[in-house]
Amino acid sequence: MLKMKTAGHTISMALLAAGCLLPFVAIGGDTPVDYDIIPRELADNAVLLRERALLDNLSVDIVESITTEVGPRRVGTEGDRRAIAWAEAKFRELGFDRVWTEEVPVEYGWIRGEASAEIVSPYPHNIVMTALGYSVGTHGDLVGEIVEFADFEALEAVPEGDSLNGKIAFVSYSMADFVPAPGASRMSGYGKGTQARGRGHVAAAKRGAAAIIIRSVGTDNNRYAHTGSGYGYEEGVKKIPAAAISPPDAILIQNMLKRGKPVVVKMNLTSEITGPVKGANVIGEMTGRSDSDNYLVLGAHLDSWDEGTGAIDDGAGVGSMMAAAALIGQMEQRPRRSIRVLLFAAEEIGLVGAQAYLAANKENLDRHLLGAEVDGGGGRAHTMISGVGEASVQVMREMHKLIAPLGIAWSDANDANGASDMGVLGRAGMPALNLQQNSNDYFMYHHTPNDTFDKIIPEDMRYLTAAYATLFYLAAELDVDFRK
Amino acid sequence: MLKMKTAGHTISMALLAAGCLLPFVAIGGDTPVDYDIIPRELADNAVLLRERALLDNLSVDIVESITTEVGPRRVGTEGDRRAIAWAEAKFRELGFDRVWTEEVPVEYGWIRGEASAEIVSPYPHNIVMTALGYSVGTHGDLVGEIVEFADFEALEAVPEGDSLNGKIAFVSYSMADFVPAPGASRMSGYGKGTQARGRGHVAAAKRGAAAIIIRSVGTDNNRYAHTGSGYGYEEGVKKIPAAAISPPDAILIQNMLKRGKPVVVKMNLTSEITGPVKGANVIGEMTGRSDSDNYLVLGAHLDSWDEGTGAIDDGAGVGSMMAAAALIGQMEQRPRRSIRVLLFAAEEIGLVGAQAYLAANKENLDRHLLGAEVDGGGGRAHTMISGVGEASVQVMREMHKLIAPLGIAWSDANDANGASDMGVLGRAGMPALNLQQNSNDYFMYHHTPNDTFDKIIPEDMRYLTAAYATLFYLAAELDVDFRK
Repeated sequence: MLKMKTAGHTISMALLAAGCLLPFVAIGGDTPVDYDIIPRELADNAVLLRERALLDNLSVDIVESITTEVGPRRVGTEGDRRAIAWAEAKFRELGFDRVWTEEVPVEYGWIRGEASAEIVSPYPHNIVMTALGYSVGTHGDLVGEIVEFADFEALEAVPEGDSLNGKIAFVSYSMADFVPAPGASRMSGYGKGTQARGRGHVAAAKRGAAAIIIRSVGTDNNRYAHTGSGYGYEEGVKKIPAAAISPPDAILIQNMLKRGKPVVVKMNLTSEITGPVKGANVIGEMTGRSDSDNYLVLGAHLDSWDEGTGAIDDGAGVGSMMAAAALIGQMEQRPRRSIRVLLFAAEEIGLVGAQAYLAANKENLDRHLLGAEVDGGGGRAHTMISGVGEASVQVMREMHKLIAPLGIAWSDANDANGASDMGVLGRAGMPALNLQQNSNDYFMYHHTPNDTFDKIIPEDMRYLTAAYATLFYLAAELDVDFRK
Repeated sequence: MLKMKTAGHTISMALLAAGCLLPFVAIGGDTPVDYDIIPRELADNAVLLRERALLDNLSVDIVESITTEVGPRRVGTEGDRRAIAWAEAKFRELGFDRVWTEEVPVEYGWIRGEASAEIVSPYPHNIVMTALGYSVGTHGDLVGEIVEFADFEALEAVPEGDSLNGKIAFVSYSMADFVPAPGASRMSGYGKGTQARGRGHVAAAKRGAAAIIIRSVGTDNNRYAHTGSGYGYEEGVKKIPAAAISPPDAILIQNMLKRGKPVVVKMNLTSEITGPVKGANVIGEMTGRSDSDNYLVLGAHLDSWDEGTGAIDDGAGVGSMMAAAALIGQMEQRPRRSIRVLLFAAEEIGLVGAQAYLAANKENLDRHLLGAEVDGGGGRAHTMISGVGEASVQVMREMHKLIAPLGIAWSDANDANGASDMGVLGRAGMPALNLQQNSNDYFMYHHTPNDTFDKIIPEDMRYLTAAYATLFYLAAELDVDFRK
């Protein structure tokens, strides 16, 4: 019986006495945890790894490194090329056994150019605008009267035709004011906002509009516009400029419209769609000691939007996943199975790197035993959701016990597909797990100039990293088939 | 005895029953308040005024109006001229009995122009920079190596000479990280920051620097630079460009410097000092019914910096002070004494409008019976400090009892001079009172593009306005000499 228990508390107390552990270990409870599947020694090692990770700043240092030494890295730009070189060098520096890149061709490139805008009447104001990804430019000043739509549905409700001729459609939907349905998360408000961001320009063009502007999809009220989306024009529909304005400027326009006066905006975007560009997925492997051809995969995306330095989106993912694997790599011996960190290219323009990865690795998909991705900032995880075969749910529950002391709850849903890029592999059949995070900050900063290193909360990053290190160490040692 | 009491509670209960009062009136306590000086009827009226003000959105509407219909209004700009016209019209609309302007000549004007900057090496990054007020331009790209100073004192500790030749001095002092001495407020951290903002360019020039940049003086970590100061070059010292960078970019540069590599910045400011300009103090008066030649003065400044729309700095002051007087004006009869709202010109460049006002009104200073100013945002007041003659402290204490239910404490200091512009008059001898406010938000937004209407918290503005309306109604009715 004792063999099947982890003396989690006993270890904690001993380490605490030795000054090695933070007091929160006590959250684990006062009694040893029972395990039916995880051997005691393995669980003990996982506890030690978890506790070491909580004291290790590597994940934060990695975010500091990529945001300082690289900065913005949209696919196809000089910054993206520097990011690829940075990632290869960083994997090597951290002791990964194998490091390689896989090219990701991207059909179009894009030059952001400059964006400027002003309200011409009834009251002149400069406003803050940014082009949405892969928008065409305005080719000089574009001047038009604003027609407001509460959301994408309201725009789509207008019959196709020419009713918006010469006008600028303005979708004023506010993610900040969206109240999710009971049980739903903030993400549902994001999803609603991204409809106009991703397809508003097509809908507006079909109704004759000269351009579309949207209130930024975010939860903040800072005077930044949130960019987003990426090449989404429709064949046969006029390509009109698409831009986001800052929340305060959206409110300003709405307050002018309330006065019953026509609001006229002048905007100028010098953005431009170009020919094909190339990105690369960068992969680092800690090679398994005995079953090296099967691997666990930790994902994040290497690219970022081009206005901030990509700290929370997705430097936090890069930092936590690289660090989780590196911390496992610092243990006495490599785990049985390999652990791969996949840094995807071109996530921001529609999971392009992940799709390229799947196409190139389709035959090896069965060797991807379990995957997870961090693409929701550096906040702490609060809930673990598995997405595995029924037969292995029980082992997932046991693995969860080792991260429960980090304040992470268990969900019975077992419907995880893998977040973001990893969802491409998850939907193709790869077993996955998701750690849902506190992403309250995320939607305040992401896709804006304000996504910078200072937004990272180091303690939270250490918690997040510790959770992934613990889970993936266990998954790499256990002889479990997670397949559905 | 009853005559000398205000049945505050009794009134409250009756009004509450009638659906007129918010429940917080009960904060006033369960027993009638004793007064030695304030007659009961007057106190009763003051309570009614206070409660009405708490339900009245006028102060917020005024901020919405000036930020929407005018926006940025730096002295000498088109926006400032529109603000003057707006203020005159608004006073009239609100029923002020007399409205006039007093011209304020300003020795120099200034064109902000554009500011752009990038880190050239060791890692290229665009950074967010703004010119400090009245900085000269760079006349093309200015490229220099960064030399960091922890604060203004560290810069001044360098012997004058040419040790910074060709370099860009960088004062990295962070108001956000400043810990005030026990008992001191956040303002002490602001004061420390404004040393480099106001005089850093002179100190740096005396040591040969080609330019100076400072970490923005603010408590936020948004990617905005806070502008500030205003014409401060010294005769005989080279005029070098002076700019602020955003906190995240200051941290970025510091992180690069930590790597031991030279950091080279390229900056380009097209700002320009021009010839003289004109502003105007705009004054509205609710004329007293019997002692109209003596007046209470409520102050705020009409000008703003030019990047946001001047909502918290100082739209909140304009809104609360105009509304407080207007609410008094809506009472059955005018108070005995006059109440004047003074909207000062050119505060942001060094209290220029207030000095002009004092010069023009020196002979009437004795008629300014009591003054106060709001220039700390729209937050609630938490402490009342008088600055009056000993003989009238007791009446101030009684006046305070009428605003105590708003959550405002009394301070015995009696050393108030009047905030901001009003301090010019206070230091010249005018009796004053200060309501210290919660200004936590203020230093996050002020002097940035982010100072916009959405930052106003309506409920807080109503509390603030109610306090001033109550106090100045009482002061206008009481036959008290507040002089020191």
